Amino acid sequence: MAKLDLTLDLCFATLGDPTRRRILQRLARGDASVSELAEPHDMALPSFMGHLKKLEEAGLITSAKQGRTRICTLSPDAFLPAKSWLGEQDEIWEGRLDRLDDYVTNLMNERAK
Amino acid sequence: MAKLDLTLDLCFATLGDPTRRRILQRLARGDASVSELAEPHDMALPSFMGHLKKLEEAGLITSAKQGRTRICTLSPDAFLPAKSWLGEQDEIWEGRLDRLDDYVTNLMNERAK
Repeated sequence: MAKLDLTLDLCFATLGDPTRRRILQRLARGDASVSELAEPHDMALPSFMGHLKKLEEAGLITSAKQGRTRICTLSPDAFLPAKSWLGEQDEIWEGRLDRLDDYVTNLMNERAK
Repeated sequence: MAKLDLTLDLCFATLGDPTRRRILQRLARGDASVSELAEPHDMALPSFMGHLKKLEEAGLITSAKQGRTRICTLSPDAFLPAKSWLGEQDEIWEGRLDRLDDYVTNLMNERAK
């Protein structure tokens, strides 16, 4: 539980930044080098590298050297923990609406008697 | 776009904390007073109130006074921006796999000629 909590903390916190979300959106289209990724961002390279580091630490991307270029890849299951958590909340919410529905139906049946 | 970015920043950053996620999970089951919400958390009340404030600022919950009690409610569309963003990434990713599939099929058809 504590480990899942840490994964979710990292995943959600990392997604809470527009530069990092844009990097992930670009990588969903295909692998890219650090310079390709940095190009549309008006940002000093060290700051940009800091965002890549955070994405890597959160397990959302991986990177590997190819010759003198570093190529970044979106992790295939990058968003799974976040999506699972959000999906669970929907299930709890829907379960609650179902129970409310049952309650109202029973109430109406009781009154009709 | 900038407004959606701010919404997503706030939403994801707010979800990046286990106490806040637990409050949301509790509220998915139904409305609760501040003291009911605080009870399972081993935390000073001012710190706990700080988490509630962040959840309210991010539009994830609302709260209203009922007599001397403050009742918190999960916003029905609380997770919609986060879920939409994650869903978009899946679509981009799947589109990419479809294109790869087309490419391989074409290549094999060309070779078969």
